[in-house]
Amino acid sequence: MSTTEIKFGGFGGQGIILAGIIIGRAASIYENKFATLTQSFGPEARGSACSAQVIVSDDRVMYPYVTKPEILMAMSQEACNKFLPETTDNATLIIEKDLVEPQNLKPGITLYGIPATRLAEELGRKMILNIVMVGFFTSVTGLVGYDAVQEAVRASVPQGTEVMNLKALDRGYEYGEEIKA
Amino acid sequence: MSTTEIKFGGFGGQGIILAGIIIGRAASIYENKFATLTQSFGPEARGSACSAQVIVSDDRVMYPYVTKPEILMAMSQEACNKFLPETTDNATLIIEKDLVEPQNLKPGITLYGIPATRLAEELGRKMILNIVMVGFFTSVTGLVGYDAVQEAVRASVPQGTEVMNLKALDRGYEYGEEIKA
Repeated sequence: MSTTEIKFGGFGGQGIILAGIIIGRAASIYENKFATLTQSFGPEARGSACSAQVIVSDDRVMYPYVTKPEILMAMSQEACNKFLPETTDNATLIIEKDLVEPQNLKPGITLYGIPATRLAEELGRKMILNIVMVGFFTSVTGLVGYDAVQEAVRASVPQGTEVMNLKALDRGYEYGEEIKA
Repeated sequence: MSTTEIKFGGFGGQGIILAGIIIGRAASIYENKFATLTQSFGPEARGSACSAQVIVSDDRVMYPYVTKPEILMAMSQEACNKFLPETTDNATLIIEKDLVEPQNLKPGITLYGIPATRLAEELGRKMILNIVMVGFFTSVTGLVGYDAVQEAVRASVPQGTEVMNLKALDRGYEYGEEIKA
């Protein structure tokens, strides 16, 4: 059974949870996988930090807490500092590169950076930076199919914003494809 | 130890997950409680149905799956039909009353309905119906404090939309207070 643990971290208002929801939903569309998203709020949740854990699996997920993420998407420096020590030794780290500078990067970590805020602003709406990140995630991880992610975006964003969000998705995906080329 | 299980259900685009996030976050602000939000995506997630499970507890939540919700917030008929049989016998059912007509209501269930879509439209933005529902939830359940929910809304909605969302919260809360009076 194949299972992938993913952590998404950033600050409130960046749409980090929606990013996790879209990946989770895409996984269930793509090849009939199962996914679970968990978000924990403790007294420490008083700040603006925000995180979600997503598990994608071939089978139902019995224990939805992420223990060692293989993929970390960090949209704030705080999230990167906090969650990077928890990842596996050969994890994939995906960052908003104008907001995050990874420190003490272990040698096995694969790093991918994208200026998602700037790209979102170029598309006319800063708010869609999370969807730019999701497109980038889709390209560099290959975890879920691009078609499935498009479908998940359509099903997850507010009505009337689909076109703008699909453009953001495409921009992030394209940026990933360029990096890999 | 006091623990409350809550289920939120509706269709995609209604902001049902954000409603759950706000309640979860408010609980952690209010009296230092802990909360967990879980969302499961199976192959059945292909449709537009959407649900989240929130557990609010005095202590850390070790098993974040909801087994028998004591509170169900249903924003679609499908969600109401699907989740109502799972609740406790004396659960609280909160519905968007222009979208949902509960069927086979057990005698112990307490029902609260609000025309959240219409109220949101009156405020000028249909998209904030979920926050209207959250305000209503806060009033009728008394589970979390109104101040904490306000803080959670501020921390959870996109930057620049705080004022509009706090108005929606207030409208839903006020509607609840009127019903109870």
